[in-house]
Amino acid sequence: MTQSRTPQTRAGTSVMAGKGVYNEHSQPQHVAGEDGVPMLQRAAAALPPHALERITIVDYGSSQGRNSLTPMSAAIDTLRERVVAQEPISVVHTDLPANDFAALFETLQSDPHSYLRDRANVFAFAIGRSFYERLLPGATVSLGWSSITVHWLSAVPCVLGDQIFSPLAGPQQRADFARRAADDWRRFLGHRLVELRPGGQLVVVGSGADEQGRSGAEGLMELANAALQTMVADGLLAREDYERMVLPTYYRTAEEFTEPIAGDWPDGTFALEECTQTDLADPLWQRFAASGDTAAYAASAAGFLRAFSEPSLFAALAQRRAPSEVAALADGFYERVRVAIEQRPEQARCAWRLVLMRIAKRA
Amino acid sequence: MTQSRTPQTRAGTSVMAGKGVYNEHSQPQHVAGEDGVPMLQRAAAALPPHALERITIVDYGSSQGRNSLTPMSAAIDTLRERVVAQEPISVVHTDLPANDFAALFETLQSDPHSYLRDRANVFAFAIGRSFYERLLPGATVSLGWSSITVHWLSAVPCVLGDQIFSPLAGPQQRADFARRAADDWRRFLGHRLVELRPGGQLVVVGSGADEQGRSGAEGLMELANAALQTMVADGLLAREDYERMVLPTYYRTAEEFTEPIAGDWPDGTFALEECTQTDLADPLWQRFAASGDTAAYAASAAGFLRAFSEPSLFAALAQRRAPSEVAALADGFYERVRVAIEQRPEQARCAWRLVLMRIAKRA
Repeated sequence: MTQSRTPQTRAGTSVMAGKGVYNEHSQPQHVAGEDGVPMLQRAAAALPPHALERITIVDYGSSQGRNSLTPMSAAIDTLRERVVAQEPISVVHTDLPANDFAALFETLQSDPHSYLRDRANVFAFAIGRSFYERLLPGATVSLGWSSITVHWLSAVPCVLGDQIFSPLAGPQQRADFARRAADDWRRFLGHRLVELRPGGQLVVVGSGADEQGRSGAEGLMELANAALQTMVADGLLAREDYERMVLPTYYRTAEEFTEPIAGDWPDGTFALEECTQTDLADPLWQRFAASGDTAAYAASAAGFLRAFSEPSLFAALAQRRAPSEVAALADGFYERVRVAIEQRPEQARCAWRLVLMRIAKRA
Repeated sequence: MTQSRTPQTRAGTSVMAGKGVYNEHSQPQHVAGEDGVPMLQRAAAALPPHALERITIVDYGSSQGRNSLTPMSAAIDTLRERVVAQEPISVVHTDLPANDFAALFETLQSDPHSYLRDRANVFAFAIGRSFYERLLPGATVSLGWSSITVHWLSAVPCVLGDQIFSPLAGPQQRADFARRAADDWRRFLGHRLVELRPGGQLVVVGSGADEQGRSGAEGLMELANAALQTMVADGLLAREDYERMVLPTYYRTAEEFTEPIAGDWPDGTFALEECTQTDLADPLWQRFAASGDTAAYAASAAGFLRAFSEPSLFAALAQRRAPSEVAALADGFYERVRVAIEQRPEQARCAWRLVLMRIAKRA
């Protein structure tokens, strides 16, 4: 594999579909985040008194904000029971520079579930920078939250040839992804340790893996990969374009998540206060089981796939082709996915694994 | 005039062209901001010692950030001479929710003149909310900056019939605009007074007016208005659409700017430390005078007009017409403006007036 064939996640590329699309098609991520809310409330309740002045809550990897409204509201309400109404609470949402921050701020201003409604002295900010870098002044964060974000790697370590999803790749390629994921997770934790106040708490809802490294979405991703291969076979997609298409994601086992937390860090020490694993019931499948509406299920599952995968899969093509051509290819691809799901709905059913961690910076 | 004919600046409307366009076509605003930089440096130098801990600088009305790089760099460098290298400095850029914040963050990350380059312990944030509302926790801002922003009103108080620019309107309409401008300026100042720390300083570079309320851009705006009227005459633009088109701007005299500052405020007292007026040499005209290239001048002046006026002028149309139709009308309009400038370049020459104020919150 030559250097030039290694796609990189560029600074100018968002990993989530813009124009508010991700807000509309991220219900599984939303449900996953809800699972972490009680843990975030416990984190807020556990903050030491000195972390309750000039409170800053950080939402690391907010995307367009819809999925942050419930956890941020819960954290604010728990903290408000502990501090007077006049005490300001700042909420900072971070994501990559190219994220759709206008959609985020419009959601905060207008969504009926916005935490800014009916809550006084709450102030919202954003930071457009990768969370694999330092984001905030040291020792200023009381409470951190990151839900279904850290499986997105800082860059793709290698292309996968005839696969687009790292859990389905061969052993050597999976080892490359595992190394990158380990580096990224250490970088994430190291920067958060500097940003947290002593006694501050960080809750991470991670998209996890079983002992074989499988995410629970392999069926859907095999179906998507097969659809791309039919486009190659039909002459619609160049083979060299297909070979560049890969999702920059890795799904960690509970051990891969927790092992570094106890390690040595230059700027303090972590305590792993809680770690739980849970399986995420697929909300799209649950709705299908209730309705029996295969067409609606196929549309929602294809829309879910598109919202999180299109920017990554098609970024490499966008460097060499006109936007209208890339858009037409993407339309064709997700339509094939939708048709394939309609034919084999069971294959698109996901069984995501979650690893939920509550981590404290020792005072 | 009925209520329904009154266009409002909606929360979802940005006043600046997006997709980085404003960054490319705002050289006059850039030059105006440069005029205020020495005043901002004096403000930074005048901060009392207690305002030098946990420093926050706020850039009120940043648009896409290009014009903020020089003033923020200058302010940071002045402050850095007063505090140790480890002391963090936070910079917060604010604009309307629909602002192109992705362009802002990409500028901060990639522009060779970004203040984040070669400066350690500097952290950038954004707030997507009108500066006519409260934006930050009380008593947290050491230094505020707002350049060529406060002539944008919170809403259009009335339509202007056969004009698009309030300085060219009739006396009663101008009085409506003056009242709205006075209210908005008091709201702006009142919120900033709460946000500033005692002893904190605010520098405002205002787009001003002569004693007749003229901004210095009346020639360009008459030319633009005439181009719209030819589109109505040619049947390309409906008369009722034309009558809704109005820029939500007002240009204050020095007295209108300074008179409220000395007034009574519920949350503290201001001191007007400095107030200067200056005329802004038109940088586009200066380049034309050197080159003699009429075509290049017409293109740059039309591009400048488009970057600040298109979202406002065409927002009312966008509520009733397809995006492609609105885009075609806008293309046609600014092309007519470009041709008209090519024929009468002198009429597009602007002589903007600036009112520069350095305002302190009394300790």
